[in-house]
Amino acid sequence: MTRAELVQLIKSRKSYLCVGLDTDITKIPEHLKDKPDGVLEFNKAIIDATRDLCVSYKINTAFYEAQGVAGWQTMQQTVEYIGNEHFKIADAKRGDIGNTSDQYAKAFFSALPFDSVTVAPYMGSDSVQPFLKYDGKWAIVLGLTSNKGAADFELQPCGEGLLYEKVLKTVSQWGSDENIMFVVGATQADSFTAIRQIIPGHFLLVPGVGAQGGSLKDISEKAMNNDCGLLVNVSRDIIFASGGADFAEAARTKALGYQQEMAKYLG
Amino acid sequence: MTRAELVQLIKSRKSYLCVGLDTDITKIPEHLKDKPDGVLEFNKAIIDATRDLCVSYKINTAFYEAQGVAGWQTMQQTVEYIGNEHFKIADAKRGDIGNTSDQYAKAFFSALPFDSVTVAPYMGSDSVQPFLKYDGKWAIVLGLTSNKGAADFELQPCGEGLLYEKVLKTVSQWGSDENIMFVVGATQADSFTAIRQIIPGHFLLVPGVGAQGGSLKDISEKAMNNDCGLLVNVSRDIIFASGGADFAEAARTKALGYQQEMAKYLG
Repeated sequence: MTRAELVQLIKSRKSYLCVGLDTDITKIPEHLKDKPDGVLEFNKAIIDATRDLCVSYKINTAFYEAQGVAGWQTMQQTVEYIGNEHFKIADAKRGDIGNTSDQYAKAFFSALPFDSVTVAPYMGSDSVQPFLKYDGKWAIVLGLTSNKGAADFELQPCGEGLLYEKVLKTVSQWGSDENIMFVVGATQADSFTAIRQIIPGHFLLVPGVGAQGGSLKDISEKAMNNDCGLLVNVSRDIIFASGGADFAEAARTKALGYQQEMAKYLG
Repeated sequence: MTRAELVQLIKSRKSYLCVGLDTDITKIPEHLKDKPDGVLEFNKAIIDATRDLCVSYKINTAFYEAQGVAGWQTMQQTVEYIGNEHFKIADAKRGDIGNTSDQYAKAFFSALPFDSVTVAPYMGSDSVQPFLKYDGKWAIVLGLTSNKGAADFELQPCGEGLLYEKVLKTVSQWGSDENIMFVVGATQADSFTAIRQIIPGHFLLVPGVGAQGGSLKDISEKAMNNDCGLLVNVSRDIIFASGGADFAEAARTKALGYQQEMAKYLG
């Protein structure tokens, strides 16, 4: 999916919501737990209930890998079920030397139909560049993450600024705002103004709203750009809004709340 | 596998060789390419040919993920085939917020029988700690990698030293040399002395010998400690030593060369 197509989706749906399919098999409703395709059935119901309210789905690969071969199968069936009217993110935090990142790009962009993969920047340019060779595909590189551990390295002084600032400055030179996005956690709202000075044009994938406590209002006021420039991810707060048989309906109600708030900020 | 067990293996086999199963399906011999289980058959032959010469196998997950569901199945069958007489590394470069790293740890330590996973440090403590909760299992954290991109961030000034030095100092505090190892590329031999000053006791997983040009002699002279403290990985130079039907025999010859050289350095 190109940037122009993504921006068009955001305008038409009045939403920059990404629904995170971090589908923990221990948290799905009881009536689905024992089914062989319980996670897939859960995901399909969530997707059907939220399609018109969001522009993106983010599949957290860890929750699928934890189920072994069957989990990878469920991931494939889920991403195929989403179709082509949403920006599909493999939240996989990959990154390795060039010949290995080539294989990861192949895994998510050829063997699976994702539009983007989250990538860890630590190993530098050759670990990121293989993800930039596919037309209409994106690397979403970790900038400043939402977790407590961000303080250990990302927020440490490095050269003239902080490490994450160096990452934003350096990585943004390896591609363009047509094929690179950055992860910036919603819990880091104090940093959004500084981040927009470094990368005014790039899309940001913003996790951390909902269960992690980030504010949609703060992010939207501080980090939106002329093309919106935001994909705000909500996982647990939507998909596990109810633990009962009404889980899909409850997810839709939550997602609708986020979408309506986003419509206001989009103006 | 505990540290004591690993050290015992190294002593008994007179080897600290790790064979890297970066099995690129396009590079296996012609007679295996069209078989549905060609990669598994290749891996089994390599393992059988090298079992007595190495102490570890490293499965590079990217090459399996690139083959989708079938690839994950091959990875599982391969790691199960290795058995319990080798230290089994999932070279997966994972790392995410705590609740997600929990799932990655489950994927490789429960759903699959690996002894260790390579982990990227960028996201900090909560991204690494879930891998340290399993008895006899290890996190192998990226320190200074073998690729050109190491210059972009790892070798940049950060606080009082370089970023990778800060990573070694910080991460080594999160566990012990009984559950944390570090990746240090063989191409970074100039840095081995400095690294051993920071982490004298930890095991290092050293890729980059062979196709990437690192010297086994240099590493061994500069970085070996009283418990050996090294796992030197060789992938392409062993597994693709011959592209013909004699690939396993050729792999054994190469592995034997490395093992004999290692026996000398072990003294």
